[in-house]
Amino acid sequence: MTQPLYLALDYGGTKHSAALLQPGACAWAAHARVQSPSGADAAYDQATMLRMARELMARVPGRLAGVGVSFGGPVDARRGVVRLSHHIPGWEETPLRELLAQEFGAPAAVDNDGNVAALGEWRYGAGRGCASLLYVTVSTGVGGGWVLGGEILGGADGMAGEIGHMVVRPDGAQCPCGKRGCVEVEACGTAIARMARQQLAAEPEAGAGLRALAGGSPESVTGALVAAAAAAGDALAEQVLDRAAANLGAGLGAAICLMNPERIVLGGGVTKAGDRWWAEVRRAASENGFPQARVDIMPAALGDDAPLWGAAALAESAATG
Amino acid sequence: MTQPLYLALDYGGTKHSAALLQPGACAWAAHARVQSPSGADAAYDQATMLRMARELMARVPGRLAGVGVSFGGPVDARRGVVRLSHHIPGWEETPLRELLAQEFGAPAAVDNDGNVAALGEWRYGAGRGCASLLYVTVSTGVGGGWVLGGEILGGADGMAGEIGHMVVRPDGAQCPCGKRGCVEVEACGTAIARMARQQLAAEPEAGAGLRALAGGSPESVTGALVAAAAAAGDALAEQVLDRAAANLGAGLGAAICLMNPERIVLGGGVTKAGDRWWAEVRRAASENGFPQARVDIMPAALGDDAPLWGAAALAESAATG
Repeated sequence: MTQPLYLALDYGGTKHSAALLQPGACAWAAHARVQSPSGADAAYDQATMLRMARELMARVPGRLAGVGVSFGGPVDARRGVVRLSHHIPGWEETPLRELLAQEFGAPAAVDNDGNVAALGEWRYGAGRGCASLLYVTVSTGVGGGWVLGGEILGGADGMAGEIGHMVVRPDGAQCPCGKRGCVEVEACGTAIARMARQQLAAEPEAGAGLRALAGGSPESVTGALVAAAAAAGDALAEQVLDRAAANLGAGLGAAICLMNPERIVLGGGVTKAGDRWWAEVRRAASENGFPQARVDIMPAALGDDAPLWGAAALAESAATG
Repeated sequence: MTQPLYLALDYGGTKHSAALLQPGACAWAAHARVQSPSGADAAYDQATMLRMARELMARVPGRLAGVGVSFGGPVDARRGVVRLSHHIPGWEETPLRELLAQEFGAPAAVDNDGNVAALGEWRYGAGRGCASLLYVTVSTGVGGGWVLGGEILGGADGMAGEIGHMVVRPDGAQCPCGKRGCVEVEACGTAIARMARQQLAAEPEAGAGLRALAGGSPESVTGALVAAAAAAGDALAEQVLDRAAANLGAGLGAAICLMNPERIVLGGGVTKAGDRWWAEVRRAASENGFPQARVDIMPAALGDDAPLWGAAALAESAATG
């Protein structure tokens, strides 16, 4: 009997990934994880993804039992339809689940990347065994998802977990979404860089360490440089990093009041900012949450592969359920 | 064969209620809803409740199939144990589920009043048929609960739904919980009265209508008087009511970002404040939520009886499952 295989697909904003998993395995099948840069439109990207998937199927002997998809944009998970991509044109109202199910002759499931990454961390990563998990990714933006009782909670429109657009500073910075002081515009990597540039402009004598790291040009400051300068003891960088961490923590505290999750898992580039950032996030989350509520805030385990692992978990659900 | 009956018990801060429901009914059994003021300690209250329950059982022929309990304080619902009452001494670590199951020879279930009221509105009230419901009660305090997929979501410690202590104004008023600017201290009836008194003190020429309603003494202003003055066109009262409504709406908007619930049901005395209050709550919730997310914000249907109806729903669950 041929072994069953799960096909995991991650349609990202800058790259697409595909992988095959054998049931029960904790690593991708040998030579069965590939990726490719995103292209200019949906047709190109879909052709790329199908080519990668066929290539994997040719490499690994077995029978495709299920296909799971993480999509970087709004998805109607119940219908398996991509609403649109904010990065790549041509995805509007694409019935991706049906297309893939027909292409591969196996059941398929599709959801957005925040939700799928949350499922990945719950099934294979830092959220294993949790009855209620909030996953938040903090990089150039802030996204997230809920896994409750082992299932993605999408909410009425599949948007549950969008902590990035929760307001934490009512008088804060203007967010592209139209509101002021959203978690994203007050805590993501881009926000850290913006706050640092503003602070360098406001205090011409301060931030020598950060200025040096940025080669003397404040406009080239990034979130990662701020973290590096803070780690090296630059006081201005420390203040900016603390502020961003406190803003994220305020959002997590609100989530604790509202949902009292058993665990919060944080992923994305900004979570590499160091112990100081983590301490401040935890302090602010606890302060803004409930004294009596447990607050178990942990780093993600799967890194950039969280959506791909979540897609594998979706494939497994599609195959077995 | 004798008909099955569900016994619903509501242990409140100021009164206790008991009722019997026949399966499938949408009204309490005839003459089978009683209540009594709370006493000075847990032993007295427990004796009162048992007496009321036995009295009801004597009135209505049938066989007790399940007992459901709403308790006005923290409960470990999984273990069926009351942690404590903030109002009445002697409840610490009371195994209420076991006590009632033994007393009545029927399965029992216990949860806190916010969660149980949410279940009541979902099963019998304004939340019927909802896949995801947030219930919020706005009176002298602000509490709430979630019903997701027909089940109470308690979270890790049974505290999910505590929107009252979510921070919406980081520079706002001091809350007894220790934080500043919680929804409760910025939006409940007591908060409306406090804000009105402050505003009357700050603007000695303004608020003539509200001053008249309060008999000339600002210290006797209540939330209800502010609502009445606003309805009569008093500009100061309107501003205060708008501000409180906007603060609640900000909290609801955060809940929409985080959970994207299908429906939000609002109960409690403050929700009687009139159309202006509702319009401002809805506006602020929408503004603080997601443009794409549906926002279905409705008045509760069960009034003060929401916890008792929820207790009946818990009794039914205990009996059948």
